Amino acid sequence: MDEAVVPTRERIVQAAMACFARSGFHGASMQQICAEAHVSPGALYRHFPGKDTIIAAIALAERTRHAAFFDSMVSADDPVEALVGVGIGCLEAMLAGDTNVLSVEITAEAIRNPDIRESFMCNAREARETMIAAMRRGQDRGLVDPALDVEAACDLMMAMGDGLIAHQALNPGMSPTRFRPVLETMVRRLFRPPSPARP
Amino acid sequence: MDEAVVPTRERIVQAAMACFARSGFHGASMQQICAEAHVSPGALYRHFPGKDTIIAAIALAERTRHAAFFDSMVSADDPVEALVGVGIGCLEAMLAGDTNVLSVEITAEAIRNPDIRESFMCNAREARETMIAAMRRGQDRGLVDPALDVEAACDLMMAMGDGLIAHQALNPGMSPTRFRPVLETMVRRLFRPPSPARP
Repeated sequence: MDEAVVPTRERIVQAAMACFARSGFHGASMQQICAEAHVSPGALYRHFPGKDTIIAAIALAERTRHAAFFDSMVSADDPVEALVGVGIGCLEAMLAGDTNVLSVEITAEAIRNPDIRESFMCNAREARETMIAAMRRGQDRGLVDPALDVEAACDLMMAMGDGLIAHQALNPGMSPTRFRPVLETMVRRLFRPPSPARP
Repeated sequence: MDEAVVPTRERIVQAAMACFARSGFHGASMQQICAEAHVSPGALYRHFPGKDTIIAAIALAERTRHAAFFDSMVSADDPVEALVGVGIGCLEAMLAGDTNVLSVEITAEAIRNPDIRESFMCNAREARETMIAAMRRGQDRGLVDPALDVEAACDLMMAMGDGLIAHQALNPGMSPTRFRPVLETMVRRLFRPPSPARP
């Protein structure tokens, strides 16, 4: 990263993400984050008085990233193809791979820490609601199976995404792009109205 | 738990699972495990000289539990309905809920600890191979879509299962049984040969 052009605050957030992914929230110290970001302890504490405030900043950055993913579903003509696109985008982001380990760390931490849980579940809730609303509009327009419980189906899709991120973190050699064809097939077959001959 | 009838070793494993779920692998101390299991430190160290040996025992217990789930797929007449059954069994186990948090903790720990990773990935590998072999036999017998990449499809199913466990750990109030109908629909639509009218 070019230190000259990245603002200090953002550089600290990036450094903290790397340290948390490597050593966990508890394992990573403020000193390590300083070293990784090449800032003095004074500069770090001026921007972030404690680890919790850094984690809150990561949550905000993730929310922005999440929203960009699911934005395509807000006004999509066809929510099923839009969800296929979101799935492919997620697979590509997983391949880039820099936040998979952090996601698992956050999940484990969120179970025990209500503030972190709230920050990150808020992101998931927004994505979930966007997806469900798009699928409901698709049902109204005959593009989505009217008999499908789209809320539960969207929850399964989000669980699958989080599970894939965890598997990718455990097997960095796994190639997420090999899931692309089967993911397309699954999304279309699950959400599309069944043909008459199909159960 | 009735202490009189549960062997000490098993009682320690159960107590350790509760402590790890509550405080994490790093947060839980051998003292806490002694207190939870109602055993003396001497008895604990006689059975388990360190935390790592307790974690290995948990891995072994999980392997037995896993194998029982996927056993139904080994000789199933119809692998698709067998997988539906495995899915429903997993949802019911999630509802019982005593190992969801532990699973997330193990995943996070496994990323950084190769011994734990190997123990738990070994379980997942066995389940995965059983499922893939059953689906391949289903393809040979016309019960499973011959064009489907069953390896990738089974990996998606396993990711979905692990993702659901993590979501359940984060939202203990979530009712996993509400996923039952959509899970059945998804598994059948994904794996069954498509009817001619379907893409």
